[in-house]
Amino acid sequence: MNNVMLTVAYDGSGFSGYELQPGKRTIRGELEQALKHIYKTPVKLYSSSRTDAGVHALGNVISFAAPAEIELSRLPAAINSLLPDDIRVMKAETVKDKFNARFDAKSKTYEYLIFNGRIMPPSIRKIAWQVKPKLELPAMKKAAKYFVGKHDFSSFCAAGSDDRDFVRKIQEVKIQKSKVKIWSGPATRDPRLVTLTITGNGFLYKMVRNLVGTLVEVGLGQREPGEIKEIMLAKDRKQAGKTAPAQGLCLIKVVY
Amino acid sequence: MNNVMLTVAYDGSGFSGYELQPGKRTIRGELEQALKHIYKTPVKLYSSSRTDAGVHALGNVISFAAPAEIELSRLPAAINSLLPDDIRVMKAETVKDKFNARFDAKSKTYEYLIFNGRIMPPSIRKIAWQVKPKLELPAMKKAAKYFVGKHDFSSFCAAGSDDRDFVRKIQEVKIQKSKVKIWSGPATRDPRLVTLTITGNGFLYKMVRNLVGTLVEVGLGQREPGEIKEIMLAKDRKQAGKTAPAQGLCLIKVVY
Repeated sequence: MNNVMLTVAYDGSGFSGYELQPGKRTIRGELEQALKHIYKTPVKLYSSSRTDAGVHALGNVISFAAPAEIELSRLPAAINSLLPDDIRVMKAETVKDKFNARFDAKSKTYEYLIFNGRIMPPSIRKIAWQVKPKLELPAMKKAAKYFVGKHDFSSFCAAGSDDRDFVRKIQEVKIQKSKVKIWSGPATRDPRLVTLTITGNGFLYKMVRNLVGTLVEVGLGQREPGEIKEIMLAKDRKQAGKTAPAQGLCLIKVVY
Repeated sequence: MNNVMLTVAYDGSGFSGYELQPGKRTIRGELEQALKHIYKTPVKLYSSSRTDAGVHALGNVISFAAPAEIELSRLPAAINSLLPDDIRVMKAETVKDKFNARFDAKSKTYEYLIFNGRIMPPSIRKIAWQVKPKLELPAMKKAAKYFVGKHDFSSFCAAGSDDRDFVRKIQEVKIQKSKVKIWSGPATRDPRLVTLTITGNGFLYKMVRNLVGTLVEVGLGQREPGEIKEIMLAKDRKQAGKTAPAQGLCLIKVVY
């Protein structure tokens, strides 16, 4: 029996998230249905990240024990031919028998896109969060430094999680005016786009969106950068900022 | 009475094009409905480009004679509050009484995005045309040179147009590996994206998509670059290539 690892990209707009939910359209549901069709038997998937409804992925990593041998170079095309076009298997690889995409991830990188301007360009309305008042990036960068390192992130963990251990290690939080170009021409290079790139060894339930929501409150002058330290020490979700909306978030890559 | 010029952006995916069509969702229909609500009387719009179903715009320019004075700085927000989020007025300006966005355009720039690879990333499926076999860009560039200048473009005009004069002047056709980044991270800088940027004084019905479709046939080795000259001289739509699909096309800007 082969252990297979898939790299999967999706536009999260049309999904109720990764995890199976009865009667709802989910990433896992679509993938398991396609794999069942290919292998003629149910296949159980393990994902590095069970992304929420509306969250996107360029490189979510998913593994499964393949019930039969199928030539790996043909597998992505075979699965993709059975999938809707808002989800695509970009790559398939063989991995060691013990490998599990959910439990073996060493680090994950998420990006969060903010449009900091008054009129939201329609082309990015499903991949960015519009924040109208001007954000003070220096204050946000200062605040973000408190997140880096090994900390108890209870204050940034949403209710409804089954986590027991709230300590996570964040390697980097990068905040930059983005040169993302929505279309390819120079007309679309928009200085009002701000990207937050967050890399860590793991994230609690809605943690990235809670970090972003809190950093935006700092950027709007509603909080001081130094408050972050107190918020973390409080270990109380109510002390941190609001949850940033799902559509700005994208899982970029997972390292094993 | 004020003459007003709007710069309008839209995601064309959900529209049956710019022009009014009974019972269908159109750009003009949405805009005229919003303006009627604001001015309490019907307003007739003139557009630089009546884009087809599925075609996008970053900067379509639309003008109208305003039935009442409304402070220009407030107009975009007023209109946008009445529009669905896939269409946005980015700017409003006063123009001379004689100005007409449809008839006074000096040049228009369109961009066409091609994804030249085997697996289409879901994030760009509504803004790019997937061409799987490798495109030979040097051959396409050579072919594109024949388009530049003043020519009779009958061979690239779709049936159903009301054009009488088929001569248009193309200023530039730029074909390049695009550095477009779908998301903001380096992971998404994709060398398989090809952009065709076409600037001209005007375009016949479906002309840009017919030029692109023909250039792609050259890039696939199905035609020689030199054939373009013959195709143009033939003044026969059947001599040129297939029409490239709508979703890859975007009206970038209009110069007056």
